[in-house]
Amino acid sequence: MARLESSSVIEMNKINLAEKFSLFDETWTPKLVGELNGQHVKLAKIKGEFVWHTHDNADEMFLVIKGSITIELRDQRVDLNEGEFFIVPRGVEHRPIAVDEAHIMLFEPAGTVNTGAVEYEFTVRDPERI
Amino acid sequence: MARLESSSVIEMNKINLAEKFSLFDETWTPKLVGELNGQHVKLAKIKGEFVWHTHDNADEMFLVIKGSITIELRDQRVDLNEGEFFIVPRGVEHRPIAVDEAHIMLFEPAGTVNTGAVEYEFTVRDPERI
Repeated sequence: MARLESSSVIEMNKINLAEKFSLFDETWTPKLVGELNGQHVKLAKIKGEFVWHTHDNADEMFLVIKGSITIELRDQRVDLNEGEFFIVPRGVEHRPIAVDEAHIMLFEPAGTVNTGAVEYEFTVRDPERI
Repeated sequence: MARLESSSVIEMNKINLAEKFSLFDETWTPKLVGELNGQHVKLAKIKGEFVWHTHDNADEMFLVIKGSITIELRDQRVDLNEGEFFIVPRGVEHRPIAVDEAHIMLFEPAGTVNTGAVEYEFTVRDPERI
């Protein structure tokens, strides 16, 4: 491991999740933190009930980084704790809920709007990159 | 929140990372745990030095779930601790290293081979789904 120990340490765009979450307070406002293969990696703080919506052409992954959330589907609910994820298939109506503030990571195609085709007070069409 | 409390709890394919990591011991053997939008979500345990390789057509995201790793590039290194991620752009030669066993989540296009075009003892062409 001599090479490792003697090499200079230059960190190129590594992302620290806790640091990124410390940069914003607002809920239901996904922030863009990574992009690869046409997909976006976003972070969001959520609290309360979101709006029912569907992504017709995007599967959406919710990974809980801190706290607990529920993904409500029309016929069932999925409770997720820290270290758990769930993929909502395209076309499936869903509604995220968090009783207490929770921090989540989202994976979805670039351009995915957080409320799908629904216009809502929290609709974000062009997420801020942090 | 009465609706939530009274609804039945049916968990559809949620993934608990710790539970999945408990299902295997081998290192350098990515396991498939999710698929969305043509991308794969994989979990791997790594320890030691991997082989230098490149993915010509795939960006690859490394998220550290437990422990610490280093992504060596030819001209720099990226040290990642738990809760940090790094995206290796397509075409960039790299080598993951972990001094002590570390647990990582990978996010990359379906069909990405862990050693790129390099044939190696740890090459996995068809990862097991767990």
